[in-house]
Amino acid sequence: MVELKVLLIIGDGMADRPLKELGWKTPLEVARKPSMNHMASVGICGIMDPIAPGVPPGSDTATLALLGYDAFEVYSGRGAFEALGSGINVMKGDVCFRVNFATVNENLVVLDRRAGRIANSDAFKLAESLQKIKLSETSVKFLFANTVQHRGVLVLRGSKLSRAISDSDPGVVGEKVLEVKPLDGSPEAKHTAKILNELIQKFHEILKGHPVNKERVARGLSPANAILVRGAGTLPKIKFLSEIYGVRAVCVAATSLIRGVCRAADMQLLTVKGATGTPQTDYIAKAKAAVQALDDNDLVLLHVKAPDVASHDGNIRQKVEVIGKIDRMLSYILNKVDLSETYVALTADHTTSCITGNHEGDPVPVAVMGPYVRSDDVEEFSERACAIGGLGRIRGRDLMPILMNLIGKVKKFGA
Amino acid sequence: MVELKVLLIIGDGMADRPLKELGWKTPLEVARKPSMNHMASVGICGIMDPIAPGVPPGSDTATLALLGYDAFEVYSGRGAFEALGSGINVMKGDVCFRVNFATVNENLVVLDRRAGRIANSDAFKLAESLQKIKLSETSVKFLFANTVQHRGVLVLRGSKLSRAISDSDPGVVGEKVLEVKPLDGSPEAKHTAKILNELIQKFHEILKGHPVNKERVARGLSPANAILVRGAGTLPKIKFLSEIYGVRAVCVAATSLIRGVCRAADMQLLTVKGATGTPQTDYIAKAKAAVQALDDNDLVLLHVKAPDVASHDGNIRQKVEVIGKIDRMLSYILNKVDLSETYVALTADHTTSCITGNHEGDPVPVAVMGPYVRSDDVEEFSERACAIGGLGRIRGRDLMPILMNLIGKVKKFGA
Repeated sequence: MVELKVLLIIGDGMADRPLKELGWKTPLEVARKPSMNHMASVGICGIMDPIAPGVPPGSDTATLALLGYDAFEVYSGRGAFEALGSGINVMKGDVCFRVNFATVNENLVVLDRRAGRIANSDAFKLAESLQKIKLSETSVKFLFANTVQHRGVLVLRGSKLSRAISDSDPGVVGEKVLEVKPLDGSPEAKHTAKILNELIQKFHEILKGHPVNKERVARGLSPANAILVRGAGTLPKIKFLSEIYGVRAVCVAATSLIRGVCRAADMQLLTVKGATGTPQTDYIAKAKAAVQALDDNDLVLLHVKAPDVASHDGNIRQKVEVIGKIDRMLSYILNKVDLSETYVALTADHTTSCITGNHEGDPVPVAVMGPYVRSDDVEEFSERACAIGGLGRIRGRDLMPILMNLIGKVKKFGA
Repeated sequence: MVELKVLLIIGDGMADRPLKELGWKTPLEVARKPSMNHMASVGICGIMDPIAPGVPPGSDTATLALLGYDAFEVYSGRGAFEALGSGINVMKGDVCFRVNFATVNENLVVLDRRAGRIANSDAFKLAESLQKIKLSETSVKFLFANTVQHRGVLVLRGSKLSRAISDSDPGVVGEKVLEVKPLDGSPEAKHTAKILNELIQKFHEILKGHPVNKERVARGLSPANAILVRGAGTLPKIKFLSEIYGVRAVCVAATSLIRGVCRAADMQLLTVKGATGTPQTDYIAKAKAAVQALDDNDLVLLHVKAPDVASHDGNIRQKVEVIGKIDRMLSYILNKVDLSETYVALTADHTTSCITGNHEGDPVPVAVMGPYVRSDDVEEFSERACAIGGLGRIRGRDLMPILMNLIGKVKKFGA
């Protein structure tokens, strides 16, 4: 018997709005993309609101939705995804945070939210020192880990913790580090805010006198003398994909937030050499890993961060270029996979506008090809061409059941 | 004043996926269906997810949805629909089951789940004997009735009963009859499971020594020496269509499950001579009954089981043929009804794949014609052609309000 598989390819922020600079076309519309167009021609197309019409999705909520979850119901903050994605074994009850090494002045005003995009080696040494701090509250432990450059994660572990607390990160340069505050009236939120404020204070004490920072200042670099904390989150209460659909699933992604969401759904995470989460990533290496992973899995999610990076930078030319690279990655894939038993789906997790530099709530195009899809008349993969496709307009959370249905993995409801 | 009416025609499992055997077209796409195409041409078309995108519907949940109910909210198991459909007056608190006469060996291993498709006359005599059994728990009564061949229904009536119990039917030949188990921790579920296990045991005792079975064995037929029980269900808590829309509604269907769902909505059930629920049903007799019923009703539901039967058997040619027969039935209807005051809707309750033989979660086509519909450019009634229709992509539960709105039966929401 044929074992049907699904390969879901997500171009992060790949959808856009029409741009004057492109003659009022979108980057997808002007990019060279014969393989994407082939998918649209032989497959079924549509447009998709990742969360709901008009709602700009985060990368975490959008990925939750694309895995079939109701993000409104299950989303429990960014922190746990960041921690899971960086390899930490997050446990029930943990409250996790995304953190930045930052540069502040003597009044705790933020001068650089990324501490001069500090090198991994410096960040690692600083993190080692921070992990040695003792909290006055002995019932709570913490884990601090740097990831890439200024990025890191912090996990609070203990009883009676809450994610209902505010960020210390003001989000902009020129403002003071914020005091963390409880966001509801619970004793847990008050307790967690108190611990976090103490920890942030102790981090600052250690960092400001740290030899690594003295050396950085001597070299003319910004000292990483503070930790900015944001995105308190706990593990979402979700059923694993293996429980819902009985599938083995794997994720090929470089971005830790995406990896974390996939890990929360109990997907296996692959690490691909050369996959960087940047426009310079090794697209073909990712494609190879995804194709190979299809051998032992029912579902492979292949995520490419590059178009989102170009969009946030407002770099229209780069966005068009990386779409072309994703198309060549797709060409490799379509030549390698067994299309008699594989459904390939292509979409974006959200629209990112090159003009606003933000995630926007516009729908994204989606195309699905495979043995038994009801192909339509769409011949181009783009925001506008796909809007008249056979899928119509769906929600992000509908895509996974649609794909799982095609491979016979959705249980019948009723008799 | 004109009295507007709705005739809703449902081809059970009529939608399908593109089939290699039909040049990658669907049975609907290749069938001769001038009347269906006429409906599409003059009407408004769309595609419809009976339950939700990607979710394979049961016939019961799909019919609930097509009557306008939220099946996720109201579905309470198959049993009560089977019992209602067979003519039993199910009451609040009753727990009902679909049962099969079956053949088991001395170790209770199932040899034939249908007892050689036992004749109605034999099944009736056995049922008579079974109904005489006394339960040790005197606060609970039961009703046992055979319906067609090996099929039957069982109703437990009394206080403190629960439908949260498992099936005794293993679903396949070669496995032992299962012990019925409570599915939650309630005393009611435990109580109900105990009673049912006792009853199943007593059924077996009576059946294995029954003269009808001795005679069957003597004639070389499989004895009906056990009862397999499945699909525990209670009456759904739903408002009647008469309450919601103020309509008189009637159902023309041969399948007891469909009849039962309609009965639960307080629709009148018609019995049509020659309507069998098989591909050999009398299509025109059903059409006549439906047309006539329009005289005294606001809503007539006409259900044809045949395409589902052909699909489950993987009989592509037969499926194409019965779609042709449904088209001729439709031709009769369109010639007879007063189209100046009647809205006619045509759809399927779900996709049934001739390849997998299963209900699938793909959407179904829908067409609505009538005096004031906003007709679109679709000219063919099929899964793909209707996808670009004016209705867009709707849910099954949306169809009834759409139809009731056309005849002015939906109350205004707000001022």
